[in-house]
Amino acid sequence: MHDLLLRNVRPMAGQSCDILIRHGKIAGLGSYRPEDGMAVEDANGAIVVPGLIDAHTHLDKTTWGMPWHVNDRPAILRGRIDFERENRQEIGINAHRQSMRHAIGLAANGASHIRSHVDIDTRHGLSLVEGVWKTRDALKDIIDIEIVAFPQSGVMVMPGTVELLDEALAQGCEVLGGIDPCGIDRDPKGQLDILFTLAVRHGVPIDIHLHEAADLGAFTMELIFERIRANGMEGKVAISHAFALGMNDYVRVGKLIEEIARLDVAILTTGAPSVNVPSIMRLKEAEVRVGGGCDGIRDTWGPWGQPDMLDRAKVIGMKNGLRTDQELAHVLHVVSKGGADVMRIDGYGLDVGCNADFTLLTGETLAHAVVDTAPRPLVVKNGRVIARQGKAIVEMP
Amino acid sequence: MHDLLLRNVRPMAGQSCDILIRHGKIAGLGSYRPEDGMAVEDANGAIVVPGLIDAHTHLDKTTWGMPWHVNDRPAILRGRIDFERENRQEIGINAHRQSMRHAIGLAANGASHIRSHVDIDTRHGLSLVEGVWKTRDALKDIIDIEIVAFPQSGVMVMPGTVELLDEALAQGCEVLGGIDPCGIDRDPKGQLDILFTLAVRHGVPIDIHLHEAADLGAFTMELIFERIRANGMEGKVAISHAFALGMNDYVRVGKLIEEIARLDVAILTTGAPSVNVPSIMRLKEAEVRVGGGCDGIRDTWGPWGQPDMLDRAKVIGMKNGLRTDQELAHVLHVVSKGGADVMRIDGYGLDVGCNADFTLLTGETLAHAVVDTAPRPLVVKNGRVIARQGKAIVEMP
Repeated sequence: MHDLLLRNVRPMAGQSCDILIRHGKIAGLGSYRPEDGMAVEDANGAIVVPGLIDAHTHLDKTTWGMPWHVNDRPAILRGRIDFERENRQEIGINAHRQSMRHAIGLAANGASHIRSHVDIDTRHGLSLVEGVWKTRDALKDIIDIEIVAFPQSGVMVMPGTVELLDEALAQGCEVLGGIDPCGIDRDPKGQLDILFTLAVRHGVPIDIHLHEAADLGAFTMELIFERIRANGMEGKVAISHAFALGMNDYVRVGKLIEEIARLDVAILTTGAPSVNVPSIMRLKEAEVRVGGGCDGIRDTWGPWGQPDMLDRAKVIGMKNGLRTDQELAHVLHVVSKGGADVMRIDGYGLDVGCNADFTLLTGETLAHAVVDTAPRPLVVKNGRVIARQGKAIVEMP
Repeated sequence: MHDLLLRNVRPMAGQSCDILIRHGKIAGLGSYRPEDGMAVEDANGAIVVPGLIDAHTHLDKTTWGMPWHVNDRPAILRGRIDFERENRQEIGINAHRQSMRHAIGLAANGASHIRSHVDIDTRHGLSLVEGVWKTRDALKDIIDIEIVAFPQSGVMVMPGTVELLDEALAQGCEVLGGIDPCGIDRDPKGQLDILFTLAVRHGVPIDIHLHEAADLGAFTMELIFERIRANGMEGKVAISHAFALGMNDYVRVGKLIEEIARLDVAILTTGAPSVNVPSIMRLKEAEVRVGGGCDGIRDTWGPWGQPDMLDRAKVIGMKNGLRTDQELAHVLHVVSKGGADVMRIDGYGLDVGCNADFTLLTGETLAHAVVDTAPRPLVVKNGRVIARQGKAIVEMP
């Protein structure tokens, strides 16, 4: 935990001031003189925002920094899952090394926290989670990593997975994941009953991948709602992707969103460009907690993406058809405060007493900062500079 | 027109070789020794592809390099048009200066040719076209610019525009533009009859903006097809955006595409992220000429975009849900050879005798080059190096 005087910054693109940091927390915003021996940085009037939040990614999957992975396979979800599970070791996707690269990239681009789903299956047991835990420890002063125990290959269709999820939660995974109870698992009641039982037993929240679109996804959402009520898990469930909310049925989507708001379900979006996605503006009107994520980047699933939440903000903003400054500021909210609200991060923000986790942004306004492509001038974690001009103080392995 | 020996390049990511350039044309691919006094560049095994083509943009509109333009206006097409027309001078969007910035940015990122729509309306007459002409002259050794006389504010709804278009074509605009004959002009027969009359009179091709979606856009397309046949303009008409081809009616879209192929109509896509767009893979199967474009970048219409056709390739590829190496290579085709086919550029390619217009790309394969974000190492126009590491040899004004 560090002391730092950051001079001449504009919090949320407002008036310029200095930020005084003591023991890794914001001690004051105003005008300060440097004290003897205190680290000082001049931001030259740059915008400062709290650390960006990647609230939905897969640190264990990327081929970032590895030789190019040729993808000549059909775009079938089940096929992608099985190919990855059976070939990731041979391809050389070491979960520790690759999660280091991915997480360091995110930190260098201004992120302070990551929620990462990590695959758990009967072929790998908990070994991939262990690889990412190693990364979490190695980077504990650089970026915070929360791990979702994620049954990528399914729960009911892969006997033995439930026991592994149970073990992962016992060992400290903070969140329980799930995936397409209909589409992948072929048994929605089976998967969801087990997920809620495990979550209640371990006292952890749930974050479920729901690619299921339109009526199928809406059906699964209704099953999730029923179990939230039955288990008193209001405020403790997140739905990732939630493509069903992108369907072209204004009234039905409205009813789903009403229930989402009522049960305080969080939504995670990646702005998936080629499918129908939830409208972040409609979710904002309903006061639903919404975070953003890079999802997988350059992995066996697909070639796109980079470890950069501002790049992801662009994808989400363009997909949502947003154009005004106010709308762009909301996109920035989704990839920062929105994600923090989903992850329930304590001490997040730029107020006195908050954690000194933030990033400088280039640009005149928040909207300008979202579309600008320049590297982040400075990233601070726990009051310490951890990246300059897009380059972290630790090297990628 | 210049001589150059480019050593150690991989044409289209294939085997490494040298490219010998004489008088601005490719004289040979093979293994060459430098001659006395000849410029030599070593590409270190980088991929080389022909110059990228921005076949749909608006050089006269961008605020690139200007103070941030705050957008607090509703997202209504007609409103955007009127706001821009009435305020562009006051905002300081000088068509010459701004088109210089935009075009130099494209060149620095590997583009060799631009097709730019330039606004013509009764408020500005031909002054915006004149500004871009000045840019074309100033950059004639850097990048080729083709100008579409574009009635942004409408034709029938703005009396006096027809005469201006007529004058613009007489003065040398290479292509005649048009816009939403129903949506904007409220008189599809009126606008289309006049466009085809003007095009035939001046012997120029047509490139019409068609944002009209679904049934409305399909109706307008049918009117266009009728006039292509009646005027013998097969192979001389392009439809930009063509959102109607993105509608969810497989059979009807198939019939439209059949007619598009039969009449050799070209399609220009920008991969517009928030609306339904034509499938570039379906158009490829039908052997339709398809090019790509950045469209407007950071203008009064919207904040997104940058002068970079590889960035646009990403937008188009992600929007189309493409993932395999073969698909990504096709996206690269759309923003290069595809655009050249739409613009009917002579001597385009990497064969002996072709213009020495090309860019180096980073990455191991063509697919890798599409997703990589590094600056282009070297850009060559007419056999001369015009940019290195993303920086052009001419400064932006």
